[in-house]
Formats: sequence, C-alpha cells, structure tokens
Amino acid sequence: MSALETRTRILDAALAALPAEGFEGLSIGRLAARTRLSKSGLFAHFGGQGALQIAVIDAAAARFDGAVTRPVLAEADPLERLRVLASLWLTWVTTDGQGRPCPLMQAAMSAPGLAEEAGVHACAVRARFHPFVARLARRAAQAGRLRADTDPQRFAFRFEALGLAAGLHALSQDPAAVRACAQAEYAALLREFAA
Amino acid sequence: MSALETRTRILDAALAALPAEGFEGLSIGRLAARTRLSKSGLFAHFGGQGALQIAVIDAAAARFDGAVTRPVLAEADPLERLRVLASLWLTWVTTDGQGRPCPLMQAAMSAPGLAEEAGVHACAVRARFHPFVARLARRAAQAGRLRADTDPQRFAFRFEALGLAAGLHALSQDPAAVRACAQAEYAALLREFAA
Repeated sequence: MSALETRTRILDAALAALPAEGFEGLSIGRLAARTRLSKSGLFAHFGGQGALQIAVIDAAAARFDGAVTRPVLAEADPLERLRVLASLWLTWVTTDGQGRPCPLMQAAMSAPGLAEEAGVHACAVRARFHPFVARLARRAAQAGRLRADTDPQRFAFRFEALGLAAGLHALSQDPAAVRACAQAEYAALLREFAA
Repeated sequence: MSALETRTRILDAALAALPAEGFEGLSIGRLAARTRLSKSGLFAHFGGQGALQIAVIDAAAARFDGAVTRPVLAEADPLERLRVLASLWLTWVTTDGQGRPCPLMQAAMSAPGLAEEAGVHACAVRARFHPFVARLARRAAQAGRLRADTDPQRFAFRFEALGLAAGLHALSQDPAAVRACAQAEYAALLREFAA
C-alpha cells in the first residue's frame, strides 16, 4: 500500500469514528488499533494529535468540496448555482438521518477536544463557506439573476442560517421533516431575491 | 453552607469550566479539585458523571429561562414578545464575544463527550425552543399582530435559524458585526410577517 493510500485509509477510519468518539477521541493510539497500523507508523504520517486533527478537518473539507462546492461550480447559470448549493448542502447537513453532525460544524463546536492549532484551523475552514455564498450571490446579482439591490453578505447570512438550523435540528428531529421545511425556506428565499 | 448552596456552587464551577473543557472534561474528580470539595461529597450531590452532566444542562437551561424566556413572557403584546425574544436570544448566543458557544448548543453537538442519558436530555432540552417560538408566533397571528396566514412552524424555523447562525458565526467572526447582521435580519423577518 502506498503512503498516500495508507494516509487515506487512516483518515477514512478517523472520519468514520468521529460521530461517536468526537475529536477528543481521535488519539493516535486508538486510530492505530482501529487501522491495525503501528503507533509509530501513524506518527510518521501525522506527527501528533494536533496535526492529526488538522488532517481530519482537511479530509472532511475535501469531501465537502467534492459533494457540494465542485458540483455547484459545474453549473453555468448563477441562480441555478444557488439552487444546487441549497439542495446539496441540505443533503450534506442532514445526511444519512442518523443524528450525525456535519464534521465541520462538529469541529467548530469542539474547541475543548481540539489542540489549539486545530481549533483555529477548524474555525478558518468553516468560515470559508460564508464568503463562498456571498460571492455566488454577488455574481448572480451582477448577471441580473438576483435583484440588483441584493446585499451579498446579508443574503449569505440568511442562506447559511437555514442550512445550519437544518443540520442542528436533524440531530434531534425527523430529518425528512427538517429537510422539507428547509427546502421550502430556500425556495422562498430564492423567490424573494430572484430578479 | 446548605446542600442547595453547595450544589449551586458546583454547577457554577461546571458552567464556568464548560467552554474550555467541554462536557467530556466535566469529571467528578476535576470538579472536586476546582471547588475544593471531596469527591465523595460530589458523588452525594450528583451520583456520577451522567447525572452531573444532566444537572449542568439543567443549570444552563435555567439560566437561559432567566435571561431569555421569562423576560419575553413578561411582555404583554404578542409581536413585542417576538422582538424581545430576538434581542435577548441574540445577546445570549453572542454573549461576551469571547468565542464561547452557548452551553445548550455545545451540549447538542457534544454527543461523544456525554453519557448516553445526558445526550438524550441535551437534545430534548434544546428542542424545546422551536415549539416555544412556534407558540408565540401562533398567538401573535391569532391576536392579529402577525399575518393570519403565518405558518408557525416555518416562522419558528426561520427565527431559530438566524440565532443559531449568529451563535456559530460569533465563534469565529467579530461578534458585533455578526450581531448587527442578525439584528437586521430579525427586523426584516418581523416586518415581512407583521399584520
């Protein structure tokens, strides 16, 4: 197995363990047992607890980009991009309906379980989403697909709020009902702002 | 010191430690050291880790009721209740601006650090907020202060989404800017639905 394959296998195991064990449970020792690799082998890949947590956050972000942001950018129409983003993000945050939080939200709320540098990194990664949405909104307004007076920051705040609420509600309520409610709200938001 | 005072002192210490140490750090041993009480004394009060976590969640909920829901219910006008709720909740979720999460949101996202019964309890306590907002919206509509066609569930979802987003953003962004954005969104929401 190549070094890259081994690294991927370790990060897959870490992401799978995250909902039940949290970032605080992501120790080199436990992951070594889970992947049947040596502790020294894991140290060679990650160098320690903080670096491992950062690698797991980046692996979650890479999955997010693959599932959400890249398919959005493959759309040509600026308004359609926002519709696709709402749909894919909602699937991401309410995924599998088994009460598992989005790993990036989990990281942003897990300060006590993260090494300091990993906590800073988690916040920085999560904070990328707001400017991404604001940029899509600005371009849609410039292209005449959203109202010209759309405030991209305010639009992005409302857009992001619906998905965050859906993700949190889906932990304790029927995910299908949560998704239906959030879908209706996204449709209303886009109707309100569409040019 | 009475048993009630001792209990209050322990729970105050636990809530103070929560942002830095998380629910996973709330051990009887650490709290005993922090409050200079005996471990057996803490066991006498709480009986174990899970019961302690439940008591801390209830203490956070009691503070929330004192800071947010009781002042709201002291208002007579149904629309004013929603305005006051937006304002007090926003203060609560962005409080102190030191990047500390709301303890109830923290609990709902901390499944790995909570005993199973405490995790169930945390979700149940957090989930009380949605029906509280929906009930206020229904009464405001019945009193002719919100539009008669207001869907209380949808209204509550949007209302709650703004506060959750503000709370999460305030962990990584300038809390004053986050609060200003959320205040503008609450004002727009109430304008949109006001009768």
